[in-house]
Amino acid sequence: MVRDVASRIHALRAHLRATGGRALVVIHPPNVFYLTRFTGDNGAALVTLNRLVLFTDPRFTTQSRQECGRGFSIVITRKSLPQAIGETLAARGASGRVFFEEDRFTVAQLHQARRASSTRWTWKGVRGAVEAIREVKDASELTRMRDAARLGSAVMDHAIRTVRAGISEQDLAAEIEYQMRKRGAEGPSFETIVASGARAALPHGRATSKRIREKELVVLDLGVILRGYCSDLTRTVHVGRASREVRRWYAAVLEAQREARRAVQAGIEAAAVDEAARSILRREGLEPYFIHSTGHGLGLEVHERPSLGRNQKALLKAGSIVTIEPGVYFPGRGGIRIEDDVLVNEAGSETLTSTPRELIEI
Amino acid sequence: MVRDVASRIHALRAHLRATGGRALVVIHPPNVFYLTRFTGDNGAALVTLNRLVLFTDPRFTTQSRQECGRGFSIVITRKSLPQAIGETLAARGASGRVFFEEDRFTVAQLHQARRASSTRWTWKGVRGAVEAIREVKDASELTRMRDAARLGSAVMDHAIRTVRAGISEQDLAAEIEYQMRKRGAEGPSFETIVASGARAALPHGRATSKRIREKELVVLDLGVILRGYCSDLTRTVHVGRASREVRRWYAAVLEAQREARRAVQAGIEAAAVDEAARSILRREGLEPYFIHSTGHGLGLEVHERPSLGRNQKALLKAGSIVTIEPGVYFPGRGGIRIEDDVLVNEAGSETLTSTPRELIEI
Repeated sequence: MVRDVASRIHALRAHLRATGGRALVVIHPPNVFYLTRFTGDNGAALVTLNRLVLFTDPRFTTQSRQECGRGFSIVITRKSLPQAIGETLAARGASGRVFFEEDRFTVAQLHQARRASSTRWTWKGVRGAVEAIREVKDASELTRMRDAARLGSAVMDHAIRTVRAGISEQDLAAEIEYQMRKRGAEGPSFETIVASGARAALPHGRATSKRIREKELVVLDLGVILRGYCSDLTRTVHVGRASREVRRWYAAVLEAQREARRAVQAGIEAAAVDEAARSILRREGLEPYFIHSTGHGLGLEVHERPSLGRNQKALLKAGSIVTIEPGVYFPGRGGIRIEDDVLVNEAGSETLTSTPRELIEI
Repeated sequence: MVRDVASRIHALRAHLRATGGRALVVIHPPNVFYLTRFTGDNGAALVTLNRLVLFTDPRFTTQSRQECGRGFSIVITRKSLPQAIGETLAARGASGRVFFEEDRFTVAQLHQARRASSTRWTWKGVRGAVEAIREVKDASELTRMRDAARLGSAVMDHAIRTVRAGISEQDLAAEIEYQMRKRGAEGPSFETIVASGARAALPHGRATSKRIREKELVVLDLGVILRGYCSDLTRTVHVGRASREVRRWYAAVLEAQREARRAVQAGIEAAAVDEAARSILRREGLEPYFIHSTGHGLGLEVHERPSLGRNQKALLKAGSIVTIEPGVYFPGRGGIRIEDDVLVNEAGSETLTSTPRELIEI
């Protein structure tokens, strides 16, 4: 087993011991990958105090052996994985509490697992056991996150050079995702957003066949997956010279984003980062148009812990990576968002994405 | 409400009445889209005997109004959607059985919904209520599926022309996905598979930085999403002149695939289609190398009902669309798979994907 995986398993077993569990069943794919390095799309892990088992189906026999390496037993099954896991537990003859991911297991999966396991096993739902470990990135993850942020920034630089009146949102998105793949990404970390004109008022507007026109704001929100890890950044450009009003909006979002990045530090409340952005927009009378939270954790998933929302009391941890992405949206008129990926340090933060943030008029 | 959606809701309400339900909660995104046309990534639908409600969060206020159209109430909430649905049910003052998707709801979501609803509501898990309706495509869906199959075939034709010794799997996958987007697809319906040489023995091998070499088999498995609907097809090409053994394998898979397509017809067992392919490979001594089932349904999802596996007793229905994709895999040596999308008719079938199937030596 590689050292990173060994230390994650070690942390998980310490958690098991501390909470009175004999075993944890993991089915959420990023958690399975984190603990096993298995990348197939049908896998589950059983972590007991002294055993590690990966469950998958015959399509992944060769791949699972290559990816998991030493230290893992591999069970190849044609059954549903929760059922196979239940049967494995029953066959062990042991007993105790087995934890499952209650926010990932479907009601049907729990039913299958429970029915197959011996009644000596008690199933108990838990949340975030693996996610809590994932929140702090280890050295190999930080390297990958830096690489993903660098690649995302390079693709954004290219995308900004490609924006022009006349190109369709869809063609621009195609070019962006092509650049990701050509530069070595596994693919986009989410469906690339290219939202122009009135469509820029949709925080999650997909790219459509609409063509970009003069005098429009264009929101570009993109990210790559590189060796399993995500980046996520947004820039907003203006086609032609921006009006005074647009400049005022842009300056407010830029200031809010900078203040939020400055607020990031290990030990402060997540809500304080949100408030750092929100208070600037409030001062400018723009808070009603800021309709989402300031950011979210980033790693194997494009949305993970922590959440940087208004009511989030959790304290930021050194080694977490979060997005900082305030925005304003005016229905029917357009919107502006600026987003970077930021590493939380003991003494402050480090912004990993590097595309310039000043208003670009194309 | 557009006519297609109205008739789907009508079918669902008939199902509710027949099974003693007052309401159904739908959270699986393709099911939500099917019933509401909402495409945002956080939505849930509540279908009662006389009401239709879409639940989403403030990011999707404008988008949900545009997409859902008349006939829907829209609830915008910052709470978890299951909790908001539970509260809406409680506020109605009615009572009865409310169905939920037990294979989609997590254990935690059910808990939230149940706690928020009045105790007058009884939550009962059901499976496939919407999927059963989705299994038979209506006229507007058939049009989209034909378009998705046509676009997938055009991209495959292009991909085959692009294969050559020296190109990396990853660059070929990038080119394939670029062509999808340029030609109007929302994106790939799954991560494009380009698996060459020994990697072709992995049925789900991702594209890597490995370069394609002379004398290798290359499996290309790709599909597009076009206006929400998926295609999925596979071709296997050989770089250079194939050996007698490779030709024999290829001919066997081709015959198995043709026989399985011929077996497709409304009213026959899904397992009979699998057996049509399997029996040819058995005759050729290749059955041990055919390590997955013959196909699966296709529509809003790239894997849906029905499954064409060995033990599937369900009868095929006219208007379903299935993949037919037998393959053989030799660990360390390579693999061959041929896959098309096939529409089930009363009297037989129609193959929707059109890329030629004969062995291509490049």
